[in-house]
Amino acid sequence: MLLNVLELVGVVAFAASGALVAVTKRLDFFGVALIGVFTAIGGGVLRDVLLGITPPTSLNTWRYFTTALVTSVVVFFAHAAVRRLRREILVLDAVGMGLFASSGATIALDVGASSQAAMLIGATTAIGGGVLRDILVNELPLLLHRDLYAIPALVGSTVVVACAAAGLGANTGLLVGTISASVLRLLALWRKWNLPGPRHVDV
Amino acid sequence: MLLNVLELVGVVAFAASGALVAVTKRLDFFGVALIGVFTAIGGGVLRDVLLGITPPTSLNTWRYFTTALVTSVVVFFAHAAVRRLRREILVLDAVGMGLFASSGATIALDVGASSQAAMLIGATTAIGGGVLRDILVNELPLLLHRDLYAIPALVGSTVVVACAAAGLGANTGLLVGTISASVLRLLALWRKWNLPGPRHVDV
Amino acid sequence: MLLNVLELVGVVAFAASGALVAVTKRLDFFGVALIGVFTAIGGGVLRDVLLGITPPTSLNTWRYFTTALVTSVVVFFAHAAVRRLRREILVLDAVGMGLFASSGATIALDVGASSQAAMLIGATTAIGGGVLRDILVNELPLLLHRDLYAIPALVGSTVVVACAAAGLGANTGLLVGTISASVLRLLALWRKWNLPGPRHVDV
Repeated sequence: MLLNVLELVGVVAFAASGALVAVTKRLDFFGVALIGVFTAIGGGVLRDVLLGITPPTSLNTWRYFTTALVTSVVVFFAHAAVRRLRREILVLDAVGMGLFASSGATIALDVGASSQAAMLIGATTAIGGGVLRDILVNELPLLLHRDLYAIPALVGSTVVVACAAAGLGANTGLLVGTISASVLRLLALWRKWNLPGPRHVDV
Repeated sequence: MLLNVLELVGVVAFAASGALVAVTKRLDFFGVALIGVFTAIGGGVLRDVLLGITPPTSLNTWRYFTTALVTSVVVFFAHAAVRRLRREILVLDAVGMGLFASSGATIALDVGASSQAAMLIGATTAIGGGVLRDILVNELPLLLHRDLYAIPALVGSTVVVACAAAGLGANTGLLVGTISASVLRLLALWRKWNLPGPRHVDV
Repeated sequence: MLLNVLELVGVVAFAASGALVAVTKRLDFFGVALIGVFTAIGGGVLRDVLLGITPPTSLNTWRYFTTALVTSVVVFFAHAAVRRLRREILVLDAVGMGLFASSGATIALDVGASSQAAMLIGATTAIGGGVLRDILVNELPLLLHRDLYAIPALVGSTVVVACAAAGLGANTGLLVGTISASVLRLLALWRKWNLPGPRHVDV
């Protein structure tokens, strides 16, 4: 139950971040809706395609899609107000990211993926939507050159795999994984952690 | 039979539009062929991957691929002449778009997808090729900021789902869906309808 | 055995080329690692998704992923030294490309794909990683406008399909396909072969 609520919170945060980028790019109504929806459910669609779960759950059920669409429409009409909530969205986005990484890894283990596949596909679930958003709006994906985002996602999915290997229940893994990933992400935002770039690049 | 002809007409129109973009970008022979083929069959490949139909039909059979390839080669050598047919290509493209949206939704229902998945995957079939084309040539996807294209596609796939829900045969749905989507697209082109962009964007 | 070694050689060459591009774009540590890994295993992931092999082998086993990751980390720290090996990397890359095209086609035939699908999916295995790399770093894919790369890949997968049709064993196809593709690619590099662009483009 709490899980379901948190999942929708994550969808709202992802859709809002995607739709805001689309507004900034001055896309039309459909473009804003599409980018918002893609950002929110793109990671889950990628996860399901990689796991052979077809049609992907987020296309096959109403919940995620509708939540993402409504959020994007709200952002289209009220983007100035939403932009003032940037801080709050970042926090919710961190929670959503942690949850998607952990639930992605859990689902992967459920359908018989190896530990490594569960780690990678879990992280893909969390970062896939943002990468698709950046590809669609023709930007260098943010997580490639700024922001500690993918590492926390990998930590979350790894914690899930470790919990499963330790014989703990799936719910424990989901909980500990989500908290680890989200807290690490929030710490990175708060302390402005960045990964180093390469040294001495002469192009 | 008519359906098969229309499908190939759609493939020709999509391949021609893709190849023309590639020529404008001064890609080489292979680039023009690849972009033309991708634009024509990319939407169908995406549809099949999302539905778990592997290998995708348009890779597994000769018809679509060969038609797309021949069209792209013709455009490579005769792009100036083809460009003069821009208007005619737009009309054929509208027919192809309507048909792909409707046949995509029909196929999705066939393999047991939900109504929502059929609507979304039908529309994806119609717009996927164009989005892949724009991503490959490194442009902001056209449908995100100009042109009423995705809405007619969604209308087509929705009509198919509605016809199925009403107990009408698949052929009726296909016909009514294709006509709705194509006519709406042609009206949008003719009357220069556009979706509004967001207001008051200060970046 | 030799095959396994060659495969890992190909993974190293692909990862190194991807990571070098990422360094040039001044991506951070994670960006370099991600682009290197994507370039190396992206083609195989695409192949498996198109063939319905889920989770994709290169995500499900450690070998490819770990090799790609270690290579990318080495490039991150020693990119200047690696760059001096550009010539050697190009040769290894040609071998990897030929092998991936041939093994991709072999795997496709194994799971019951048609001849055409095997040719196309084999070539996709070889070129997919490089195209994903260029899309992620927001560049026009190299193979669309320079370099004879995709044609040798198609030659390799076609040779595999022809060998299978002629009743030769899978190993023969793999060997002849790899050699044909790699030699053609090396010849193209050595003689600076390029495909012609379209003539008289007035944009």
